Amino acid sequence: MPKVSHRSDTVPLSPFRKLIPLADAAKAKGRHVYHLNIGQPDIMTHPRAVERFRKLEWDILEYSPSNGIPSYREALTTYYARFGVDVTADQILVTTGGSEAILFFMLACLDPGDEIIVPEPFYANYNGYAHIADIRVVAITSHIEDGFSLPSPEAFARKITPRTKAIMITSPNNPTGACYSPEEFNTLAEIVKKHDLFLCADEVYREFAYAEGEPLQSILQLPGLEEHAIVIDSVSKRYSATGARVGALVCRNEAILAGVDRFAKLRLSPPGLGQMLSECMLENDEAYLAGVKDDYRNRRDTVYRRLQQMPGVFSYEPGGAFYCFARFPIDNSEDFCRWLLADFEYQGATVMLAPGPGFYATPGLGLDECRIAYVLNVDDLEKAMDCLEKALEVYPGRTTAAQQIASSGSARS
Amino acid sequence: MPKVSHRSDTVPLSPFRKLIPLADAAKAKGRHVYHLNIGQPDIMTHPRAVERFRKLEWDILEYSPSNGIPSYREALTTYYARFGVDVTADQILVTTGGSEAILFFMLACLDPGDEIIVPEPFYANYNGYAHIADIRVVAITSHIEDGFSLPSPEAFARKITPRTKAIMITSPNNPTGACYSPEEFNTLAEIVKKHDLFLCADEVYREFAYAEGEPLQSILQLPGLEEHAIVIDSVSKRYSATGARVGALVCRNEAILAGVDRFAKLRLSPPGLGQMLSECMLENDEAYLAGVKDDYRNRRDTVYRRLQQMPGVFSYEPGGAFYCFARFPIDNSEDFCRWLLADFEYQGATVMLAPGPGFYATPGLGLDECRIAYVLNVDDLEKAMDCLEKALEVYPGRTTAAQQIASSGSARS
Repeated sequence: MPKVSHRSDTVPLSPFRKLIPLADAAKAKGRHVYHLNIGQPDIMTHPRAVERFRKLEWDILEYSPSNGIPSYREALTTYYARFGVDVTADQILVTTGGSEAILFFMLACLDPGDEIIVPEPFYANYNGYAHIADIRVVAITSHIEDGFSLPSPEAFARKITPRTKAIMITSPNNPTGACYSPEEFNTLAEIVKKHDLFLCADEVYREFAYAEGEPLQSILQLPGLEEHAIVIDSVSKRYSATGARVGALVCRNEAILAGVDRFAKLRLSPPGLGQMLSECMLENDEAYLAGVKDDYRNRRDTVYRRLQQMPGVFSYEPGGAFYCFARFPIDNSEDFCRWLLADFEYQGATVMLAPGPGFYATPGLGLDECRIAYVLNVDDLEKAMDCLEKALEVYPGRTTAAQQIASSGSARS
Repeated sequence: MPKVSHRSDTVPLSPFRKLIPLADAAKAKGRHVYHLNIGQPDIMTHPRAVERFRKLEWDILEYSPSNGIPSYREALTTYYARFGVDVTADQILVTTGGSEAILFFMLACLDPGDEIIVPEPFYANYNGYAHIADIRVVAITSHIEDGFSLPSPEAFARKITPRTKAIMITSPNNPTGACYSPEEFNTLAEIVKKHDLFLCADEVYREFAYAEGEPLQSILQLPGLEEHAIVIDSVSKRYSATGARVGALVCRNEAILAGVDRFAKLRLSPPGLGQMLSECMLENDEAYLAGVKDDYRNRRDTVYRRLQQMPGVFSYEPGGAFYCFARFPIDNSEDFCRWLLADFEYQGATVMLAPGPGFYATPGLGLDECRIAYVLNVDDLEKAMDCLEKALEVYPGRTTAAQQIASSGSARS
């Protein structure tokens, strides 16, 4: 019998996949599981857009152009103009979800063995795409104590080698919810210009930035990065349409666009129905988006308030996306998440979180941290937080304050 | 300014992309272009399925499971059972078009530097996916004289090296329309068992096999290949829904399934709307498929009859798919295809073909051959064949019979 490839055995997978059988087992026992582990929101896909989509006339579902339906790309230029981003339809390539845009960026900008610097904790699937593209992810640690703000320019400089081709950020951040300040963006811009690197920003949570005022919503707004900036985008979170599998790669660098276009031609076209729906969703979307943002802000406030009230838990006010990291008085977050599913219940329910270490590349980091995705409505979130609070009170692996300080110190060293 | 990757500069692209600007220019001059160059059929997507799809109830377009919607995979087991193929829903992984299934097969079965043997001429995008997967495509030449039948076992044996991991076929074939006989399949089975190789069959044209009797419709029907056989499938051609971007990888080898599943998890899910439509299309599809097959058979007969009547043209009766190769009395098929678009018209129209060399890996082959995709209705096909016939009469690069024999001999040597 022929053997499968080594690379298929070594795909780095999402950190909480291993927990899924435990969640299934908990449900089989009749327990309700509050899923705060995943990025699948419970928000309705824009209902009026769905109605428009149903009524579209078509009789042959043909390949779309490999870079996307022209009228949709044209409509996207108007969308980006809202943020002061001036791009043409030819600078937008529609992809099969943000996922494909990540792969296309890596293939087009990096050769095998090249390196990309990513602040950790980061979206774990970047590792998987780097595995396919055969490039190296070099992590640079950010810290929960300062709400995962951008590491210093010196910290970046220490990681740069002759193989470094790009810095990649997620903005607003998954898994931390951090939003970088204008000063942090300027710092990033200086670093990429100084070291002649690409800057790729995964901006799929762009709309979900909760600070008052005018936060920066795209690296494409930064002057002087015309040749450096690549944006990964997606309709998945914005319109609660994760199954549409429609994303985009947006960029003004013609060489990148030409390279990405070749990979896009190869896979013929992005999903046709998803693009048709996406074009409908873009139409008059501002009231819908404002409502969704308010909703997420309330959820963010709920989670943050509740975490603040739990003894021994450290968190921060996440500025965006729908994620938050928290440090718990526990010895090992993977054990804790397993225990929550296998051995704990409160009022017939338990909660599923994503253990921290899966989001770090550096071994030993995130051992007492978890990611919380606030993808449930406020009532359910309150109940999920009740579960979490009770769980922490009775968890056998709970650490004392003294142990916590000691362990947190050793993880940093 | 940072430089893009070398690999993005060297993506092998489809052989007729270069002709598209010429076709656009011809249209701008008011000329009608009969597109016989591409695999985009003019057949309606199953209308009743589209109606069912429009009425489906859903309010959140969520990620589907990464291996596909369970009810759709379950329905597919019934579809495969029609051909005597007994597979479970867990042996079917739904992909983003057949394209993604090709990539997943290559990633899961081959490591960088490994080799795959493919009879040429072959679907040119295999080269592109091999480029991403960093594997080597080793071509083994099949010949127009015998209707592109399977090369001999000795010819395969000569190509096998310690790095050979798989043989890949397209069945029915794109670009040749060839359907392998049961004897040829047995030969293939013996080769892969003897040399311990995987056998991957791209069967996206399965329904379109025009011979009387019961042609073999899947390599999954071959006994003894349970661990060797991987099938690439797609709804694109079957239901004339190329834009759905829904395919499948079907296989009984658990190690392959596990490997492929890891790559599938990484990209989260295949397109949701496309899967919903595909499930609708599967329902009561037999009358639709029979009608489409009749339609293509008439087109096949039209093209073959017309080619037979053109002096100096050599072709054969293609057994399946909707493609045919033909040898023309011309010196260079790329020049000929360019000339057709740039310099020729007959009754206000011209015809676009795909030049042969783009389907061969061996330089110098296919220079006097073109692929014809019979994706137009019979009336349009007749007009397109009128154009082609007139064009061959007046083409300045037309070769004499003696030149043709000489050049065909040298291309073989």
